[in-house]
Amino acid sequence: MKILLKARFDGKNYCGWQVQKNGSSIQGQINKAAAEIYNTEIKVTGCSRTDSGVHALEYCFTIEPPENAPKIPFENLPSALNIKLNDDISVFEAKEVPDSFHARYSVKSKTYEYLIDNGFYKNPFMLNRAWHLKKHLDENIMEAAAKEFMGKYDFSAFMASGSDVSDTVRTVTNTEVLRKGDTVIFRVSADGFLYNMVRIMTGTLTEVSYGKISPEKIKEIILSGDRKKAGLTAPAYGLYLKNVLY
Amino acid sequence: MKILLKARFDGKNYCGWQVQKNGSSIQGQINKAAAEIYNTEIKVTGCSRTDSGVHALEYCFTIEPPENAPKIPFENLPSALNIKLNDDISVFEAKEVPDSFHARYSVKSKTYEYLIDNGFYKNPFMLNRAWHLKKHLDENIMEAAAKEFMGKYDFSAFMASGSDVSDTVRTVTNTEVLRKGDTVIFRVSADGFLYNMVRIMTGTLTEVSYGKISPEKIKEIILSGDRKKAGLTAPAYGLYLKNVLY
Repeated sequence: MKILLKARFDGKNYCGWQVQKNGSSIQGQINKAAAEIYNTEIKVTGCSRTDSGVHALEYCFTIEPPENAPKIPFENLPSALNIKLNDDISVFEAKEVPDSFHARYSVKSKTYEYLIDNGFYKNPFMLNRAWHLKKHLDENIMEAAAKEFMGKYDFSAFMASGSDVSDTVRTVTNTEVLRKGDTVIFRVSADGFLYNMVRIMTGTLTEVSYGKISPEKIKEIILSGDRKKAGLTAPAYGLYLKNVLY
Repeated sequence: MKILLKARFDGKNYCGWQVQKNGSSIQGQINKAAAEIYNTEIKVTGCSRTDSGVHALEYCFTIEPPENAPKIPFENLPSALNIKLNDDISVFEAKEVPDSFHARYSVKSKTYEYLIDNGFYKNPFMLNRAWHLKKHLDENIMEAAAKEFMGKYDFSAFMASGSDVSDTVRTVTNTEVLRKGDTVIFRVSADGFLYNMVRIMTGTLTEVSYGKISPEKIKEIILSGDRKKAGLTAPAYGLYLKNVLY
């Protein structure tokens, strides 16, 4: 049996989803909680890696309890897992999926959200949850520039080194930049993302607003495939995996 | 010279505003920061005590640098203090006030906000910032009951013991209960509040929604002056001082 679960997590205290030698990971916490409730090792598969400090509003993962494991009705799984998990991880949905379903390879689209705390004075409630930039950002200029990301491109210019993917073509299906009070939000949906892609896009958009990169240059930067032409990498703690479509 | 400052703070790591023998206080942090930038002890006066763990969106306090202290333009004070303060306290406004102004006694009205995380599963982003109640609350019933708090009454029934105030009459000028997604918000304005008053009001409103206290009983509870007739005290970490009017 394969069960698809959804979780929210505050990534502050974790080295990301993926189990790492050093540091506590979300997957490590889920592995442990699942093993405790089933009293045996459970295969856990996530929808994507996330960087250290990155948050999720709706992270999807599957668990595969073996045939001989205790039968737990899947609707009881979120509460059963939450009792074992730290309070900064919360499982909120569970459903059975066919064996052919794969948490990572079956993904059709993912949406990320990046939050910028754009008040002149740092908001203590956004600490570790948004990138503080005190200089005013123009969300309309950013929105116009963000539209240039839409389409099917080789996004190598928006990929950090250290990744081993061979196919760097992705299709960005939607982008949006809006302001809610002092918070500027960048949302982007695509069939997949390269390493640090949203964080480099965010950094680039802020440089467009600050006049360091002209909005007409975005397409040129994409087509150059040159990471050095894009903007800085925004910090991990402002990034949220917003949802995943299968 | 007397300067009125406004600050936001996440109260999680503090024993409240007031300096205490044990534990770190917001006032203690401000005292220390002000003394460092003026290079002398500075008198700091807050608009109210707050309980351990309580937050503020707009806490007001004055500082009184002595005549011989270095002259710092008041508009530079928020940044100067913020550099010295922890990131969970943020000063965001400063203005000169007459010597006759008193941060506490000049208050005309204060508004508090209480946040309840009313999703079935705990929201990790509301940890230490909202009271989690998984059983659904009816914000309309709570709103109707909250309106009963409005007016000038002896609110002894909504005061925790351990307070030494002699006058327990307060005038509640506005109340409001609303829902934003899974968050239920209770707002209350008054000319002043008794010890734990908002937290007991909140607890009482939840018991009204859960059918333990009938909404028509609110007035009766107020008039009884009997703390035992009111509901439970909601935890401190859901409470926010929203603003202060002078």
